[in-house]
Amino acid sequence: MKFRTEVRVRYHETDAMGIAHHSSHLVWFEIGRTELMRARGISYAELEREKIFLPVVEVACRYHLPVRYDDQVLVETEVAELGAARIRFSYRVLRLKDEKLIATGSTLHAALNGRGTVTRLPAKIREVLSS
Amino acid sequence: MKFRTEVRVRYHETDAMGIAHHSSHLVWFEIGRTELMRARGISYAELEREKIFLPVVEVACRYHLPVRYDDQVLVETEVAELGAARIRFSYRVLRLKDEKLIATGSTLHAALNGRGTVTRLPAKIREVLSS
Amino acid sequence: MKFRTEVRVRYHETDAMGIAHHSSHLVWFEIGRTELMRARGISYAELEREKIFLPVVEVACRYHLPVRYDDQVLVETEVAELGAARIRFSYRVLRLKDEKLIATGSTLHAALNGRGTVTRLPAKIREVLSS
Amino acid sequence: MKFRTEVRVRYHETDAMGIAHHSSHLVWFEIGRTELMRARGISYAELEREKIFLPVVEVACRYHLPVRYDDQVLVETEVAELGAARIRFSYRVLRLKDEKLIATGSTLHAALNGRGTVTRLPAKIREVLSS
Repeated sequence: MKFRTEVRVRYHETDAMGIAHHSSHLVWFEIGRTELMRARGISYAELEREKIFLPVVEVACRYHLPVRYDDQVLVETEVAELGAARIRFSYRVLRLKDEKLIATGSTLHAALNGRGTVTRLPAKIREVLSS
Repeated sequence: MKFRTEVRVRYHETDAMGIAHHSSHLVWFEIGRTELMRARGISYAELEREKIFLPVVEVACRYHLPVRYDDQVLVETEVAELGAARIRFSYRVLRLKDEKLIATGSTLHAALNGRGTVTRLPAKIREVLSS
Repeated sequence: MKFRTEVRVRYHETDAMGIAHHSSHLVWFEIGRTELMRARGISYAELEREKIFLPVVEVACRYHLPVRYDDQVLVETEVAELGAARIRFSYRVLRLKDEKLIATGSTLHAALNGRGTVTRLPAKIREVLSS
Repeated sequence: MKFRTEVRVRYHETDAMGIAHHSSHLVWFEIGRTELMRARGISYAELEREKIFLPVVEVACRYHLPVRYDDQVLVETEVAELGAARIRFSYRVLRLKDEKLIATGSTLHAALNGRGTVTRLPAKIREVLSS
C-alpha cells in the first residue's frame, strides 16, 4: 500500500541550474518513510530513543523531471521488502499539480542497536510495516 | 584511471546518529567528478557558462562504513561510461587513515544545452574524459 | 502582524550534537517569509520570474533552546522594516507543543532586478507588505 | 591574530539565484573555527569526545558580494572574545582571486558539558585561544 505525503521545494534545496539539487530527493524520501511509519503508529524518533536505528545502507534514485522552488511534490512511499533486520522502502515522487513522475527510488535500511550491531526488528514494528 | 580527491567531513554534514548523513556522499561524489574534470583541464563551471549542463539522471550509493565529523575521506572517481550525450562516473569513498571502504556509488549524467534538451558532448570533452 | 507557519525538524537537519544544526533556522526563516508573502497574495517564485530578487544581505539569529529530530516548531514572521528597495523580516521560532522560545532572528533583503542592481519594490508588493 | 583557511564553493551550496545560498557562509564559519583550533593544537572532534561542546548561541552575518559555484574563498577567523564559559569568533570571507570582501560575521558559543549545562572552558583551551 502506498502512503502519500506532500513536500514543497525549499529555496535552499535549489541549485545553480534553478532546480532542486539531486540530493534533495533523498531528504524527501526520508520524510516519506518517517510519515509512512507515523501513519502506522510508529514514531521513528521514539524508535531511536529505544536504541533502534535504521541507517541507510543503500540508496538509488532516477530523476525523470526537474522540480523548482516552491513546486509541491507528492512522495509515495511503500515497504518493498521486510526482513528480520532490514527494510527496503520504495518511492515515487510526483508533481502535485499534474501527478507527472519526478523521480523514483529506493532505500535499504539495516536495523542496528545502540552499539551499532545488527539487531532484529521488534515484532510490533515488523507486524505494522508488513500490513 | 582513478582520480583521488580528499574531503574532510563537515560538522554540518553529520546527523543525530553522530555520522555523516547519507546524502553527504552525493555531495562528495559531486566534488570527485568536479576535481577529476579539473585535473583533465575541464572546468565544469566554464562548461555551464558555455551552456552545457550535466544534471544527474541516476544515482546509486552503497554505504559500507559510517564516517564522523572531521574524518578525512578519499573520493576515487572514474569515468565508467561515455556516450555521445551521457557520462557515467563511478566512485569509491575510502577513509584516509586506513583506506577502509566507506561507500561505493555511481552517477549517470545527461548532457543538456541551455534549453534543457539533450545535446552531444563537445568532442574536446569526450576526448579528454575517454583518455 | 505576526504570521505563523509550522515546520517539522527533518533528520537531515540534525547534527552530531543530536539537535537541529544552527544553519537550519535560516532555512526555516526562509519558509516563514515565503509563507507570509503567500498569505498576502505574493508568490516569491512568481516575483523571481518577474526578475525581482530579494537576496539576504544581513542575517542574525539567537538560539535559546535546542530542538531535535521530528520536533514541530512554529515560525512567527513579521515585516519589521519596509524601505523603497529593502525589507527586514523578524522571526521568532517557538516549539509547537509548549510554545517555548527556540530562537529569534531577522533578515534584511535588498530588492534587485535581473541585472543584479538595486531596484524599487513594486508598489503592489510594498502595499501588501506594509498592511 | 587572523587565521586563514580556504574553501571552494560546492555546487550543492548554490541556489536558484546562481549564487552560494546565505546559509553556506555559516558552514564556512564552522570550517574556519575548526581549522583555527586545529592550527593551535585543539581538535574540536576530540573536545566533543571529552564531553565539551561549543554550540552556537548567536550568529550574525552581512553579505557584501555573492560568490558562485567553484569560486574559492578565504575564511579569516579570529577569537574576538574569550570568557570563562564562552567564546566569540569573528570572520571575514574574502574571494581568493582578488581578496574582495564577500561577507563578515561572528558566532558566539557557550561551553556545555555532556549534560548540556554550562561549564568552564578547560584552562589549556583558554590559554591556547587567548594567545
